[in-house]
Amino acid sequence: MSNALGNKYRVQIFGQSHSPMIGAVIEGVPAGVVPDMDFISAFMARRAPGGDALSTARREADSPQIVSGLNERGETCGAPLCALIANTDARSRDYDALRDVPRPGHADYAAFVKFGGHNDIRGGGQFSGRLTAPLCFAGALAMQLLQTRGVRVKARVQAIAGIRDIDVDLAAPPLDAIAAEGLPTISPDAARRMAEAILAAKSAGDSVGGVVECFATGLPAGLGEPMFDGVENRVARALFGIPAVRGVEFGLGFAAAELRGSAHNDAFRVSEGRVVTETNRCGGVLGGITTGMPLIVRAAFKPTPSIALPQASVSLKRKQDAPLTVQGRHDPCVVPRAVPCVEAAVACVLFDLMLEG
Amino acid sequence: MSNALGNKYRVQIFGQSHSPMIGAVIEGVPAGVVPDMDFISAFMARRAPGGDALSTARREADSPQIVSGLNERGETCGAPLCALIANTDARSRDYDALRDVPRPGHADYAAFVKFGGHNDIRGGGQFSGRLTAPLCFAGALAMQLLQTRGVRVKARVQAIAGIRDIDVDLAAPPLDAIAAEGLPTISPDAARRMAEAILAAKSAGDSVGGVVECFATGLPAGLGEPMFDGVENRVARALFGIPAVRGVEFGLGFAAAELRGSAHNDAFRVSEGRVVTETNRCGGVLGGITTGMPLIVRAAFKPTPSIALPQASVSLKRKQDAPLTVQGRHDPCVVPRAVPCVEAAVACVLFDLMLEG
Amino acid sequence: MSNALGNKYRVQIFGQSHSPMIGAVIEGVPAGVVPDMDFISAFMARRAPGGDALSTARREADSPQIVSGLNERGETCGAPLCALIANTDARSRDYDALRDVPRPGHADYAAFVKFGGHNDIRGGGQFSGRLTAPLCFAGALAMQLLQTRGVRVKARVQAIAGIRDIDVDLAAPPLDAIAAEGLPTISPDAARRMAEAILAAKSAGDSVGGVVECFATGLPAGLGEPMFDGVENRVARALFGIPAVRGVEFGLGFAAAELRGSAHNDAFRVSEGRVVTETNRCGGVLGGITTGMPLIVRAAFKPTPSIALPQASVSLKRKQDAPLTVQGRHDPCVVPRAVPCVEAAVACVLFDLMLEG
Amino acid sequence: MSNALGNKYRVQIFGQSHSPMIGAVIEGVPAGVVPDMDFISAFMARRAPGGDALSTARREADSPQIVSGLNERGETCGAPLCALIANTDARSRDYDALRDVPRPGHADYAAFVKFGGHNDIRGGGQFSGRLTAPLCFAGALAMQLLQTRGVRVKARVQAIAGIRDIDVDLAAPPLDAIAAEGLPTISPDAARRMAEAILAAKSAGDSVGGVVECFATGLPAGLGEPMFDGVENRVARALFGIPAVRGVEFGLGFAAAELRGSAHNDAFRVSEGRVVTETNRCGGVLGGITTGMPLIVRAAFKPTPSIALPQASVSLKRKQDAPLTVQGRHDPCVVPRAVPCVEAAVACVLFDLMLEG
Repeated sequence: MSNALGNKYRVQIFGQSHSPMIGAVIEGVPAGVVPDMDFISAFMARRAPGGDALSTARREADSPQIVSGLNERGETCGAPLCALIANTDARSRDYDALRDVPRPGHADYAAFVKFGGHNDIRGGGQFSGRLTAPLCFAGALAMQLLQTRGVRVKARVQAIAGIRDIDVDLAAPPLDAIAAEGLPTISPDAARRMAEAILAAKSAGDSVGGVVECFATGLPAGLGEPMFDGVENRVARALFGIPAVRGVEFGLGFAAAELRGSAHNDAFRVSEGRVVTETNRCGGVLGGITTGMPLIVRAAFKPTPSIALPQASVSLKRKQDAPLTVQGRHDPCVVPRAVPCVEAAVACVLFDLMLEG
Repeated sequence: MSNALGNKYRVQIFGQSHSPMIGAVIEGVPAGVVPDMDFISAFMARRAPGGDALSTARREADSPQIVSGLNERGETCGAPLCALIANTDARSRDYDALRDVPRPGHADYAAFVKFGGHNDIRGGGQFSGRLTAPLCFAGALAMQLLQTRGVRVKARVQAIAGIRDIDVDLAAPPLDAIAAEGLPTISPDAARRMAEAILAAKSAGDSVGGVVECFATGLPAGLGEPMFDGVENRVARALFGIPAVRGVEFGLGFAAAELRGSAHNDAFRVSEGRVVTETNRCGGVLGGITTGMPLIVRAAFKPTPSIALPQASVSLKRKQDAPLTVQGRHDPCVVPRAVPCVEAAVACVLFDLMLEG
Repeated sequence: MSNALGNKYRVQIFGQSHSPMIGAVIEGVPAGVVPDMDFISAFMARRAPGGDALSTARREADSPQIVSGLNERGETCGAPLCALIANTDARSRDYDALRDVPRPGHADYAAFVKFGGHNDIRGGGQFSGRLTAPLCFAGALAMQLLQTRGVRVKARVQAIAGIRDIDVDLAAPPLDAIAAEGLPTISPDAARRMAEAILAAKSAGDSVGGVVECFATGLPAGLGEPMFDGVENRVARALFGIPAVRGVEFGLGFAAAELRGSAHNDAFRVSEGRVVTETNRCGGVLGGITTGMPLIVRAAFKPTPSIALPQASVSLKRKQDAPLTVQGRHDPCVVPRAVPCVEAAVACVLFDLMLEG
Repeated sequence: MSNALGNKYRVQIFGQSHSPMIGAVIEGVPAGVVPDMDFISAFMARRAPGGDALSTARREADSPQIVSGLNERGETCGAPLCALIANTDARSRDYDALRDVPRPGHADYAAFVKFGGHNDIRGGGQFSGRLTAPLCFAGALAMQLLQTRGVRVKARVQAIAGIRDIDVDLAAPPLDAIAAEGLPTISPDAARRMAEAILAAKSAGDSVGGVVECFATGLPAGLGEPMFDGVENRVARALFGIPAVRGVEFGLGFAAAELRGSAHNDAFRVSEGRVVTETNRCGGVLGGITTGMPLIVRAAFKPTPSIALPQASVSLKRKQDAPLTVQGRHDPCVVPRAVPCVEAAVACVLFDLMLEG
């Protein structure tokens, strides 16, 4: 289904940017688990808007309320868990104008056609990045469950506006070296230059894009199903559900296409009785199945389509060209807040894979 | 399910590289259609091995036999259509050696763990590129059905070994300029240099990778479902089912991450009464939904992991390092033959989306 | 998924008898529809407890609140619609005692095993008939949408405690003859005797079961898919989701097994240019596909397992026999309130089938 | 999907009565199993036509050929297993006449509407009972796998033409008392009288229906998911995929609707340290989840719609009434051959549930 993810750990998301509530219904949470609400809230706070000068001015507390799925002791009970998040800072404007002139780079026009003009255009409706809040809830819960199984999922900003963080050893990514404060990079210098690029774009009424790189360690070998239900298929399907993602790659990704086989194959060796590879250019997955090495996945985010600069568009009613200047609160770069979203999507898929066994 | 694709036009693939047969069962073919076997065979011939010096020496006729799904007049009848393809040129060798020492870059080790050592290692088993033959059957049939609805799907080799074909206008990709003979590029010069790179790698016992770029024109606006069931999610899920794909991107893809919003957004305008965009950096899809502009998708292929050079591996039985030299017929570059596979995967997804409406 | 129904009109239900909320997320509602909340509330009131002396003493207003899926004009917008219903009259008792001694005829023991003792036993948890409230919400919305397409769905109590309502012509079931007040039967006399049987059981601390028969008229011929996704497969899957259903039959059902073919086949004839059948022993479906005649389906409900009489059970902790007397509010017969639930389940399936086309 | 069954043990069926081949693709068979072809063939022979005077004169060897899914040692390898069965004794007649005048009680007319007249009418096309052959293949393989897990599935003819076999203790059904030769009943006298009823109908050019009752023993408690994915939902969905099934019930089924709760609830007790019930009126399933007691399910089969007597029908072309006398080989009673089909459907579902855990 369209807003649902997973076979065993199954997440159904609902809501729009300005609907009274957004949320997620999750089937398949193992019974007997007490959701760690502190952990989940801290995770969701990384995504929530309003945190600093680099993001949108909209402020949302994003306090999820679990209204089903727990027994009287607060443990998961095998029933679908429903978490609700209120939309509190929605500022809806003149809808008729918005309905008539679609914003370039947004889903406005495509949704207008698809839903015969009934789509919710307030704040982007169901296409809003706001819908990543329930995804982050589901991902945080998955992450709590993955941690007890020895799996860690962690992402960083790899690049913003063409400014790249330093390269890492894909066979042993330094998860703990990723900054916990500010932009989550490994190099403080890269973070500083990225922030400058964001602020420069912001002051120009413009926006920038970037790349998020996600690592997962502690995975057993053998997860994933052949052909269309392997790790890459599922992770890619999940990541393309995050607004603004334009590309997904694993291991060396597009760079692999320029190498020779002898320079790309990861040689096997035995280390402490385990089969490992010295390098990890394949990103921890071969034939759709985990190798036991860290999973490496990258998602490219386009620059936020919401910009303050004047743009060319059309009047759908009058079927003629019409200029457009979008008022309101713009987010000059979604990439920093996308980092927990990528982690959440990956965590949901990996926990689903682990439940499948 | 693992080897199945699609909601309405549903393709279930089966077989292994050396099983007696491979094939596909397709549900959802509209009733009353006579499969154009000449068209399908010509399409499949583009993928079939043994065509020239650039590919593997294995030769397969790949003549599909339809054993169900047609009525007495040869029309589709609403029942699942099953197409069988015989494996005729399978040369199976000493399996026990292969079982013990996994080939780097192949699924051998991951599959060994997943299936407890029972996986079919002959020719790569179910992980073989051979399984793209039934995918191409399903894709060719989808393409026949798409054509009657005004949709064309066509791909080219965009790059091999770092050598790139010329850039095109994404808003009006020149489908008919792609070479019908030899390497399917637009620039004959690029094709020539790519062929040289392939032969150079081959003579070195090595292999090269590349990028396939696929265009689909004639799509209506409004196809695709929000969030996890949009065009990108489904196309990516399908493409990662083709062996050796390491990345998938739409429109400008990873390059979009380096631009500002003002340089990336595609301005709308009205042309002959239709809403179009002058540029097509988004690749014909916004918010997971088609815009009516051409769909642009790219898939990165790693260099073929099968190489003749000696490699380092391990003995799974003895749990110690073991050198490996793989004998046999190597394919120095799968990218040319991957072109119809990408078209097939995209066609299956697009026809599925059109049936969903 | 476990708590979800449908391919195109997709209903995901969540909640437990005593969770803060229960509800449904519905994907696939056509855009541009204003839910008729008066119609929906009236429909749900037929299911709500506390209505009269024949049912449980628990009282619930069952006022659904739609928190997503509508645009600013109150129209469906293509996003998943989430409806919440509060649990207000939940009286939770001493859980530890309930956890230890499972109630005969309830899911307590099976759920204890399945969920390792973490299942929510308060009021039956997720196995409670209370979960039919969100099903009725989804069904009422489906019914609103079916009505605009000329389809009516209506059920009656066909039998309670062995007392049967009168037989009807299956080719032209008299939907409007079903009583709107009191027990929904055609014969007032049957209703009176059924009510007496219910009250007699109630005063004995016991319960009774019965049969609900559902009719759907106005269906086009040609709905349903062969083999496992036909009308019967889907309707049966939905109906067995209503607690206490033990059997489902179509047309003459089990009685058909006693006839000869010549007495069971429905002869075709042409009436006013349409192909119809004089009789409708097949219940409007042949080979899983609608014939255009009324759909006839019956569901058998076991007597409510909750009774006030002492019963034999076991202590799960001490692994020994233990007597049990269940305190509290018993529902001596769920059959009358099950009538809208059956209608809802059938309406959800039929609307799903109509969207599939 | 329409012709597919199961979540983990997934069976995709294809073919028509007169297509060159019919078959099944099965995903999810555990790796390392050698299919017991003797067991499977013996199982399928129970369903195959032509066995005796009680069934159709069509003769089919039904020798399944496994063309994928096995490794070089004949073990399942984790790839989808495809089994093909040839149609050898198809006698196709004048199709145009058949297309015009639909047979009462058959899917001819419904399929004509659904597939725009392109449906395969030869021998009933995809609606033919012939399609239960691949179901029996999948069921036999499931049964082989269930047996190694201690689960037995066995069915009997419970009634034909109103003549019933003797009642059994549902808490301890005597599987081994079911006759292995002739009609599979417990009472030889019932079998004799049933056979007489079949032959009487046959000589009258008519047909009879009946009821199949299936038992599964050795199931653990805790299988099945709440609401729509429980044991009843899945078994019912599977059984309604067998042609001619008109009703499905569990435990006491429709008879339960006439009892009081005190007479229907199965009291728990402890026996040899295990929680059991003295009686098993619920048929081994509560709340959709197995209790650990035997599963009891019954399917009602209508009398075969194919009869030699003249019937009233219509000409679809001329839109007017038209008499019909169906020539050819009639099967006066499908119930005996339906016994293995019911076992197969139940076995597929139960093994799927066991893989889900």
